[in-house]
Amino acid sequence: MSDLFDAVRRQRACRRFSAEPVADELVEQVLEAATFAPSAENRQPWVFVVVRDAETRAAIGDLTRRAWRGGARQHSEGRLEPRLLADVDAGAEGGVSGAPVLVVVGGDAAIAVEAALPSSIFPAVQNLLLAATALGLGSALTTLTTGLAHELAELVALPDHVRPMAVIPLGHPARPLGPPRREPVTSKTHRERYGGRW
Amino acid sequence: MSDLFDAVRRQRACRRFSAEPVADELVEQVLEAATFAPSAENRQPWVFVVVRDAETRAAIGDLTRRAWRGGARQHSEGRLEPRLLADVDAGAEGGVSGAPVLVVVGGDAAIAVEAALPSSIFPAVQNLLLAATALGLGSALTTLTTGLAHELAELVALPDHVRPMAVIPLGHPARPLGPPRREPVTSKTHRERYGGRW
Repeated sequence: MSDLFDAVRRQRACRRFSAEPVADELVEQVLEAATFAPSAENRQPWVFVVVRDAETRAAIGDLTRRAWRGGARQHSEGRLEPRLLADVDAGAEGGVSGAPVLVVVGGDAAIAVEAALPSSIFPAVQNLLLAATALGLGSALTTLTTGLAHELAELVALPDHVRPMAVIPLGHPARPLGPPRREPVTSKTHRERYGGRW
Repeated sequence: MSDLFDAVRRQRACRRFSAEPVADELVEQVLEAATFAPSAENRQPWVFVVVRDAETRAAIGDLTRRAWRGGARQHSEGRLEPRLLADVDAGAEGGVSGAPVLVVVGGDAAIAVEAALPSSIFPAVQNLLLAATALGLGSALTTLTTGLAHELAELVALPDHVRPMAVIPLGHPARPLGPPRREPVTSKTHRERYGGRW
């Protein structure tokens, strides 16, 4: 038993991984959870490419670094707290691609309407992250490399109709993860109309 | 305790609700789960408008019907199995807006980059759906009315910088929900490269 609310509250980005391997069985459990997500017209347009090959992971790591150094870091510098920036920095500079498994998540535009891909893919990604958390794995939702979509697609041979939408590292956290920091729900909730006090 | 994997496997769209009310406490638990989702730069750009007012719900119901009859139904007709089409039909024609609570989910483009809204909002929506399932509530991820974004925004007074991204009904299911129908994970998973057998 893994309590849902416990997994929900503990799930957070892991950007440094130990060398401990992750068995196919665990990966499959995590991906199976993803496949239970809802999708527009129940088209289930998710595509998962499980990358273990060291060379491909290194190439995805290079892409990540390039995307980070080529603008994303500069954009985030003024927006992230120093601690989070340092963590993302270390992640983009090799931490994320250092995970023993990278899952490239694609959305198949041949079986779902293009406009429906985000609402059909990211719920599945969240199931994936929660399942990983429940099973003791570190993970993170990263979209940095999708800015270099063509190159990312090429690395894992995605056909033209499959859009790369996220890269999820899976592995054992290098160190225990603290709880996520979140604003209280009341600050995000409105009654009847925007601005209506909850 | 609500087992995560149990909630993941049971979560599915509910499009008919009983008249049984849903307490604010339950709504808040469900929304709180949503706020633990990851978001780009941890910006947490989610906005939840909880609608109970019968008139507003009816107006959202009208929008849904218009979007459905104005093209969506025709698009889906050839694509959905008859049973699912009938269910979506009943939902769009009043079932969804008949829920005692509608949550209009927005993405705040003033605090997050526009391009990052889908990857920052739909994971939160999935947390919301799973929490609802665990608490015995029916729910559904609907995006039909976002095609009439301006009118939907107006109904709940969303400011210009908040994009309406989904409407989630919450209530007690009118009848027990069967399990979702999904394709096996192996048919969606590729090893190392697209096409690589899992």
